[in-house]
Amino acid sequence: MTLRFGVIGTGAIGKTHIDRITNRLSGGEIVAVTDINQNSAKSAVEEYGIQAKVYPDDKSLIADENVDAVIIASWGPAHAESVLAAIEAGKYVFCEKPLATTAEKSLEIVEAEMKFGKPLVQVGFMRRYDQGYKQMKNAIVNNEIGEPLMIHAVHRNQSTSENYTTDMAVVDTLIHEIDVLHWLINDDYKSIQAIFPKRTTKALDHLQDPQLFIIETQRGIVITVEVFTNCQFGYDIQCEVIGEIGTIKLPEVPTPVVRKNAAISQPILQDWKDRFIVAYDLEIQHFIDSIRKKGYPEGPTSWDGYIAAVTSDAGVRAQKTGQKELIELKARPEFYKSKNSPIQNLMS
Amino acid sequence: MTLRFGVIGTGAIGKTHIDRITNRLSGGEIVAVTDINQNSAKSAVEEYGIQAKVYPDDKSLIADENVDAVIIASWGPAHAESVLAAIEAGKYVFCEKPLATTAEKSLEIVEAEMKFGKPLVQVGFMRRYDQGYKQMKNAIVNNEIGEPLMIHAVHRNQSTSENYTTDMAVVDTLIHEIDVLHWLINDDYKSIQAIFPKRTTKALDHLQDPQLFIIETQRGIVITVEVFTNCQFGYDIQCEVIGEIGTIKLPEVPTPVVRKNAAISQPILQDWKDRFIVAYDLEIQHFIDSIRKKGYPEGPTSWDGYIAAVTSDAGVRAQKTGQKELIELKARPEFYKSKNSPIQNLMS
Amino acid sequence: MTLRFGVIGTGAIGKTHIDRITNRLSGGEIVAVTDINQNSAKSAVEEYGIQAKVYPDDKSLIADENVDAVIIASWGPAHAESVLAAIEAGKYVFCEKPLATTAEKSLEIVEAEMKFGKPLVQVGFMRRYDQGYKQMKNAIVNNEIGEPLMIHAVHRNQSTSENYTTDMAVVDTLIHEIDVLHWLINDDYKSIQAIFPKRTTKALDHLQDPQLFIIETQRGIVITVEVFTNCQFGYDIQCEVIGEIGTIKLPEVPTPVVRKNAAISQPILQDWKDRFIVAYDLEIQHFIDSIRKKGYPEGPTSWDGYIAAVTSDAGVRAQKTGQKELIELKARPEFYKSKNSPIQNLMS
Amino acid sequence: MTLRFGVIGTGAIGKTHIDRITNRLSGGEIVAVTDINQNSAKSAVEEYGIQAKVYPDDKSLIADENVDAVIIASWGPAHAESVLAAIEAGKYVFCEKPLATTAEKSLEIVEAEMKFGKPLVQVGFMRRYDQGYKQMKNAIVNNEIGEPLMIHAVHRNQSTSENYTTDMAVVDTLIHEIDVLHWLINDDYKSIQAIFPKRTTKALDHLQDPQLFIIETQRGIVITVEVFTNCQFGYDIQCEVIGEIGTIKLPEVPTPVVRKNAAISQPILQDWKDRFIVAYDLEIQHFIDSIRKKGYPEGPTSWDGYIAAVTSDAGVRAQKTGQKELIELKARPEFYKSKNSPIQNLMS
Repeated sequence: MTLRFGVIGTGAIGKTHIDRITNRLSGGEIVAVTDINQNSAKSAVEEYGIQAKVYPDDKSLIADENVDAVIIASWGPAHAESVLAAIEAGKYVFCEKPLATTAEKSLEIVEAEMKFGKPLVQVGFMRRYDQGYKQMKNAIVNNEIGEPLMIHAVHRNQSTSENYTTDMAVVDTLIHEIDVLHWLINDDYKSIQAIFPKRTTKALDHLQDPQLFIIETQRGIVITVEVFTNCQFGYDIQCEVIGEIGTIKLPEVPTPVVRKNAAISQPILQDWKDRFIVAYDLEIQHFIDSIRKKGYPEGPTSWDGYIAAVTSDAGVRAQKTGQKELIELKARPEFYKSKNSPIQNLMS
Repeated sequence: MTLRFGVIGTGAIGKTHIDRITNRLSGGEIVAVTDINQNSAKSAVEEYGIQAKVYPDDKSLIADENVDAVIIASWGPAHAESVLAAIEAGKYVFCEKPLATTAEKSLEIVEAEMKFGKPLVQVGFMRRYDQGYKQMKNAIVNNEIGEPLMIHAVHRNQSTSENYTTDMAVVDTLIHEIDVLHWLINDDYKSIQAIFPKRTTKALDHLQDPQLFIIETQRGIVITVEVFTNCQFGYDIQCEVIGEIGTIKLPEVPTPVVRKNAAISQPILQDWKDRFIVAYDLEIQHFIDSIRKKGYPEGPTSWDGYIAAVTSDAGVRAQKTGQKELIELKARPEFYKSKNSPIQNLMS
Repeated sequence: MTLRFGVIGTGAIGKTHIDRITNRLSGGEIVAVTDINQNSAKSAVEEYGIQAKVYPDDKSLIADENVDAVIIASWGPAHAESVLAAIEAGKYVFCEKPLATTAEKSLEIVEAEMKFGKPLVQVGFMRRYDQGYKQMKNAIVNNEIGEPLMIHAVHRNQSTSENYTTDMAVVDTLIHEIDVLHWLINDDYKSIQAIFPKRTTKALDHLQDPQLFIIETQRGIVITVEVFTNCQFGYDIQCEVIGEIGTIKLPEVPTPVVRKNAAISQPILQDWKDRFIVAYDLEIQHFIDSIRKKGYPEGPTSWDGYIAAVTSDAGVRAQKTGQKELIELKARPEFYKSKNSPIQNLMS
Repeated sequence: MTLRFGVIGTGAIGKTHIDRITNRLSGGEIVAVTDINQNSAKSAVEEYGIQAKVYPDDKSLIADENVDAVIIASWGPAHAESVLAAIEAGKYVFCEKPLATTAEKSLEIVEAEMKFGKPLVQVGFMRRYDQGYKQMKNAIVNNEIGEPLMIHAVHRNQSTSENYTTDMAVVDTLIHEIDVLHWLINDDYKSIQAIFPKRTTKALDHLQDPQLFIIETQRGIVITVEVFTNCQFGYDIQCEVIGEIGTIKLPEVPTPVVRKNAAISQPILQDWKDRFIVAYDLEIQHFIDSIRKKGYPEGPTSWDGYIAAVTSDAGVRAQKTGQKELIELKARPEFYKSKNSPIQNLMS
């Protein structure tokens, strides 16, 4: 059984999913597409030479009986309504982050999914599929560094567009750390603080860059995250977990080492799209495989989307108040519990 | 159009190809299998839940009209006859190394393929698909280190089985460097010398281990390769090219760095099967894609198989004589020329 | 002219200074020693075979006309009185940290030195003499990473004795970062915050370990320092400065890389005394050389000792209040200004 | 007792020794100098402000009763006669490499020293004092990598002057590996082979550069050394010993790691004089200390000088014949035996 996909949103990210499902992955097929810009949808069909119906909107695409699963790659504010419609129709959903732009809407999705009675939704937090993070999680679960006490993470980006604003450092950028770090240490967040260092002159005036976030977890782990989106030199993701008996650090991206011109050097990635390129393939292949084998997606859940929404809400508040802001989650429903066990989510 | 595969040989390697074509790659399908051990073939069909006919031998499998391409993963001495039969039948061939166990037989394949009139055969030299080697080749082609003058390569393996003999250091182990290095520097070999250092006491008495090979190319590049197959500590592949203005080195396999127990350390792979796992996927996907798009496979050719055979013959002679042995290739036929241009084979 | 030293305090550190001046450095000589434990002083004289008078106390040693300079290596609370007595007598002073245990007493020393009219005192902040920190300072001064915006520093120690208490994380441990970081970026501190993560179970119950400090400077640079004194695995000092166009990181201690037992590893230092061993030699040689050539010591000044005292006072307050505490320094006197220029203090 | 030095040869190297003994080391003093260029000798005295007599030649300097030890830093061909004269006079000798330009002359020195009855001579093979090589030797002696089987070494230099000729790759460059490697593995050499790769176009026409040497030891260890003296990018010394259970590699020179301009990089040394700068201090301090404590120098001996001479003679022959040339040493006299034990020479 091939999983038949409808793609909502045929911008840059939507097209990479069409490409990978069509040309690189196994067991999936694009049968329908839509985009607010109909020409974009049509030209995607042509570009990849796929046999897919072009729909005028998400609702009609979801209603197509040939569509087993939808990929939501429209702009963020439109995600939640598409997700809710797909759940209503009993279709599987792969939704790019954010699941919803507010905690309330995320919770509505969580409740709709529970009401439906089985998991349908996977959120596009691809870092969990990165080999480096998986190896780190494995080591932590196997107690190789003892109980985690601190994390120091870094999220640097070469530069940002004019549209990038101070709050996007949380909702667009930090959100990847928000998801992957609680998964990594299997803990829930408690509070977040934002500190604004001296601003770089390399960013536009409206933007506070860099920013430093301090997040505390329920178990007392203290996380520092440097977010620096105009660092000039490249896309640079770092993560070190400090445990009771040792530390573990995300590997550098492997590139050949060159000795030349009075230096030993290796290139650093410039484009974020290249950093987790294998992980993007793996998350979609896992979505397909788990649905085919188990009848539901096993990746990051709606509840993970809800956690991200609550935490980023608190992060944006913290940017404004300069105070430590609480991250208050509802109790995790039984429905989402087994899925979040460290073992299951290792995807080893 | 899905490329329909027949698999000859359902041992360990054959099964990994069944697995990847069935479960991970796009555009291929297993429709037939055979093995000298019929039970092995049958159980492979069951294990992967595929709809494939089980044939009594390679000839009958090749004759199946539904088979577009064959994967040859039987034991080495059987390869050449299967390749020749497939060419005779006009079927595409993906043949694991060696293409043939002698230079003569390799040449017979080359001639049969030329007679057929278009390329049908790809040899399973997967290292060319490794990201690290590709980045190195790219840098060399772009003249980043100037003209190559020397290469220092290392091929270490944790341990070998009882059946591993001194000549296998050439025909089974060094053969990977033999293929990838001439591709890397776009040159042909001229001579090979074998030097036997002090033997490790960790290998069986019949085996000379380690061994050092010195290979000179037509352009005068000098290559040293350490082959050490019972190094005890892991699977360790290294390659540094020294050019006129700089050097470039294959990246280490990325693994998390742990600080613990008075050391900074990172794990090193134990099993060779894990080292080029992504490259194995890529070589088969490339085989499928190039056939679908261009009508012939674009990977390592029969001529590359012939080069490997001639060079490993000379290597085995060098082990025996202790002298520098010449590597004498026929002139490269026009048929194989365009394919071997550095640009085309970059697969960037 | 040989600089004749009197050593006050012949414990572990005092003895290493006797050793280096006697056996490794040029231009100095030990002519007098004292210790609260007279037997310790006598046995130090014997152990190093030096011709040095043993004095009953610091005052009588300072009064010896043969003594040009004193090294103060007694316990911390005794430092200030010895320093003041030496200044009174016009003797040069090399004082181990802390210069004084309170900001007030440090200021008294500063004032006594200014009243005397020329610099006499160097404080034992040896990290400024470490090759790695010097290279970093050089790069920053040369604008290689642009204006500094953030620093992430780590100070880890294998384990602490029973006597080590929570406030000592500031006054004994963090104090080294306090000194070296303001020198590195040529800035003054503004505030400090202390955050207490989950405690390691590997430390005694009375101790909060690890601790995280967040320090802001007058220019707005934000510094995070992890202090983890029972990290179990070794002595581990890290420092990365993040600038507008690049980052620079203190080099790892160079040790041979071993491939063995399924890992690539290198030893990490266990004993803090080994980490800056070359820097200890260089700071004393610089003390001797600058006095011989210029008539006054050129290393870290009394004012640097005062900065450290004020900052560590605020750090201890921050541990108690959980709030951001201000670091309020007097205006830097003209007397100490030229000495603190980034160029002069490079000691290149 | 201060060791009183006479310096023969006040060129660049002679002056660095005057500087270190005068300004950085303990227990030595320059009391006499000479140089074939008398003005050079006089200006050295002035430059370092030392109280040293200027002699017209080596013989008169050696005859000065105030001279305890001579440093020979004249040009190579003059070394042997000065050494022999100093032995004759019973003076200690620190002789820069080479001890003599022929094996015969080296042997004459060895015999003169034995006749005198106690060791007087230390040869300036400073690499044995480098922290990295010492740590490697320590690890090998402690059996951490098992019995050594192979070594791969690299000696790269940015560029050479017009006067540098093909044979100097052995007598001036490889000679450092010749000394340090037999010490490292506590073995004697058996044969040497020279291989000439494609020549770099960055060197002058008269020079074969790079060169590859293959040296076999009595125990059967096989050593490859790349000598590349116009590599353009810097001074780069590498050494990896491959043992039965693991490998160990000389650490890179520690320099700060910078992330900037799309790369992670660290500077590589340009000038060979900076690479072993600490080792130069340590070798002279050790010369002084061992003479003061034991009555004879404990560093590299005349016999080590003889080994280097015999081996480099064979190396130059190998460059010409293209064949494996034997390295034939006399039996090591009892006189030099205890000194060469791995333990004693660790200088830990």
